[in-house]
Amino acid sequence: MAFRAAIRPLRSFGIAKPSAQQARCLATPVHPVTQDSSRGPTAMVFLNMGGPSTTDEVGDFLSRLFADGDLIPLGRLQGYLGPLISKRRTPKIQKQYAAIGGGSPIRKWSEYQCAEMCKMLDKVSPETAPHKPYVAFRYANPLTEETYRQMLADGFGNGRGGRAVAFTQYPQYSCSTTGSSLNELWKWRQRLEGKAGAPDEEGGAADGTIKWSVIDRWPTHPGLVEAFARNIEAKLLEYPQERRDKAVLLFSAHSLPMTVVNRGDPYPAEVAATVHAVMKRLNFVNPWRLCWQSQVGPQPWLGPQTSSTVENYIAQGQKDLLLIPIAFTSDHIETLYELDEEVIGESGHADTVKRVESLNGSPVFIEALASLAKSHLDSGIACSTQMGLRCPGCKSDRCLESKKFFASQ
Amino acid sequence: MAFRAAIRPLRSFGIAKPSAQQARCLATPVHPVTQDSSRGPTAMVFLNMGGPSTTDEVGDFLSRLFADGDLIPLGRLQGYLGPLISKRRTPKIQKQYAAIGGGSPIRKWSEYQCAEMCKMLDKVSPETAPHKPYVAFRYANPLTEETYRQMLADGFGNGRGGRAVAFTQYPQYSCSTTGSSLNELWKWRQRLEGKAGAPDEEGGAADGTIKWSVIDRWPTHPGLVEAFARNIEAKLLEYPQERRDKAVLLFSAHSLPMTVVNRGDPYPAEVAATVHAVMKRLNFVNPWRLCWQSQVGPQPWLGPQTSSTVENYIAQGQKDLLLIPIAFTSDHIETLYELDEEVIGESGHADTVKRVESLNGSPVFIEALASLAKSHLDSGIACSTQMGLRCPGCKSDRCLESKKFFASQ
Repeated sequence: MAFRAAIRPLRSFGIAKPSAQQARCLATPVHPVTQDSSRGPTAMVFLNMGGPSTTDEVGDFLSRLFADGDLIPLGRLQGYLGPLISKRRTPKIQKQYAAIGGGSPIRKWSEYQCAEMCKMLDKVSPETAPHKPYVAFRYANPLTEETYRQMLADGFGNGRGGRAVAFTQYPQYSCSTTGSSLNELWKWRQRLEGKAGAPDEEGGAADGTIKWSVIDRWPTHPGLVEAFARNIEAKLLEYPQERRDKAVLLFSAHSLPMTVVNRGDPYPAEVAATVHAVMKRLNFVNPWRLCWQSQVGPQPWLGPQTSSTVENYIAQGQKDLLLIPIAFTSDHIETLYELDEEVIGESGHADTVKRVESLNGSPVFIEALASLAKSHLDSGIACSTQMGLRCPGCKSDRCLESKKFFASQ
Repeated sequence: MAFRAAIRPLRSFGIAKPSAQQARCLATPVHPVTQDSSRGPTAMVFLNMGGPSTTDEVGDFLSRLFADGDLIPLGRLQGYLGPLISKRRTPKIQKQYAAIGGGSPIRKWSEYQCAEMCKMLDKVSPETAPHKPYVAFRYANPLTEETYRQMLADGFGNGRGGRAVAFTQYPQYSCSTTGSSLNELWKWRQRLEGKAGAPDEEGGAADGTIKWSVIDRWPTHPGLVEAFARNIEAKLLEYPQERRDKAVLLFSAHSLPMTVVNRGDPYPAEVAATVHAVMKRLNFVNPWRLCWQSQVGPQPWLGPQTSSTVENYIAQGQKDLLLIPIAFTSDHIETLYELDEEVIGESGHADTVKRVESLNGSPVFIEALASLAKSHLDSGIACSTQMGLRCPGCKSDRCLESKKFFASQ
């Protein structure tokens, strides 16, 4: 309820439609946006959680993270406990970012991946070109608000229409990740283009707001599977040939609290689908397990935990273990620190416990992104049917309204 | 340890190799078994949990179920708590079996499916023919011991060698289900052909024991996926056309205690792989969720629960719900009573909440079984690489020894 009251009409932010003169003065007015959203330009907006690019940004990053009820549901205590926990954790997390080079590389990789994908799209999808790359992070710069404002400044929306694709960079859908990013995007869309966009008031897409569509999940896209498989094959070559086929592939994904799993979040099943598709591509040669990392706090999370899985296999005498981050596409603290420094570093077997490279700048991966985006642009669909279905245990009005909005576009 | 002591040499059971005369007197001495296990006859042994065929068998069924530490780990209290729980539950469960016609149809379906598959195999795999069908249940007749003795009586093993395939009828592998059945099979193999089979004592396969191989999992076999998809399509036709594509597909699998999930049991990920493969075959038209049924007792189990999922969706206004049993292939009490009578019967919307037919006698399914068995027979592999890998949290010597045995065949 408090949330709804916070969605104020556009004018109260003092950023109503700019005049023609104002529009001309904007720093990057790239190209005339047409009202016909089946033609370009098209904004391609990568959604992700983001990470602090410098250690100075850690405090703000954590405070946003612990304020997010979609990610860490603290109920009525969110406003009190969130800042408390984030403040207490900041020094420890700052040290972790310092240990991986002073910040997260996720912004660098996201901007690179999106820009490269857009270049490819300009070639393969000339009818929707030019494709303009944007990154919208949930907890770090560039934040969703900042990116949305930049899109408006660049000539999208505000009476000029134009098309934008919200492209989640989480291949598997969770309400905690993609759901949270979409709720945030919807929130800022309502704040910045709000009233103008209500289809019953001003006549639907013809109102000149940005027309959004969503790529909301892609757990078994063949290009994604191929990119993972190639990186796994490359890393397996580091084991002596006679041991190679026996190395255990440990797919590791960020865990979820059991409250979220039991609410019916689709993520665990979609992660498993990715793993199975990758194993199929690899002809099921090696044995494997799916495990879950990054649990925090005292409540129960989905297991088995990645760290104890590694410890247990080593205790069983199985020391050739290849960790595969399967739910993030770029390096971030969970790969560079948690897996590399903690799990592998403390295993006592850093020579045989290894980690597959994250997709980062993989050309196969970037081609997959372009192929996926091209299919989406051609399809004309607003989002997947699956996205329209709330979790059985969902009680969130935010989810309900956000899903309605994106499905109706 | 107590378990190991229980594995006594063959002779102490008084069933050492039968004489030639004894062999001639056996009721079903089907065909001469050859020492060359790449040729027929081949015993095709369907493994499953089974169910009481009459209400009189419920007590024994439950007492075996609650005695199984692989399925319901009660630790040191197993011998005390098991009989107590099973005795207390017997009258209630008897009523449930009475309500579904007086017994479980799983024996009927298993025997039918196996016999039909063997007929097909005789045609497509003449080199391993004849294929002789067997069913070995874990908790009901025909029990593993009974079936093993029958195989010996039929001319397999006991110095005459011959080949047998243990074919799990659980498409997705869990230590609680297929694992438990294999441990039981291994136990009776050790008791009935024990010492003779130790490769280091009598020279491996040439010792005349039965040569076993295992079909241990088949979660995404195309024939299985096709059989599920056809039954779903058939049931969807019962919804009016304009509502058909919006009906929610609720895939329901037997749940696991979180202790088993967190030990690293592969089942949840394999069930998810089946669901994804079926949805892919159905072109992802309908929205869907995977949920979990049959939780018992106070400890935490994997969710969301099927029953509360149905209740919650109805409360959300989503009343077209199609339940799909995805981890069992035949009807049993969990479909006929739990889903039909309890979940659907008590939903208040038995007209719009429906259940897809179990595979039972589906010709597409039986063809899938034959195709899967044929590939296995051709491959010459003992079991999947994956079966050789214990769960990271496994502490069971039984699992360790049983896996070693089957992998070494």
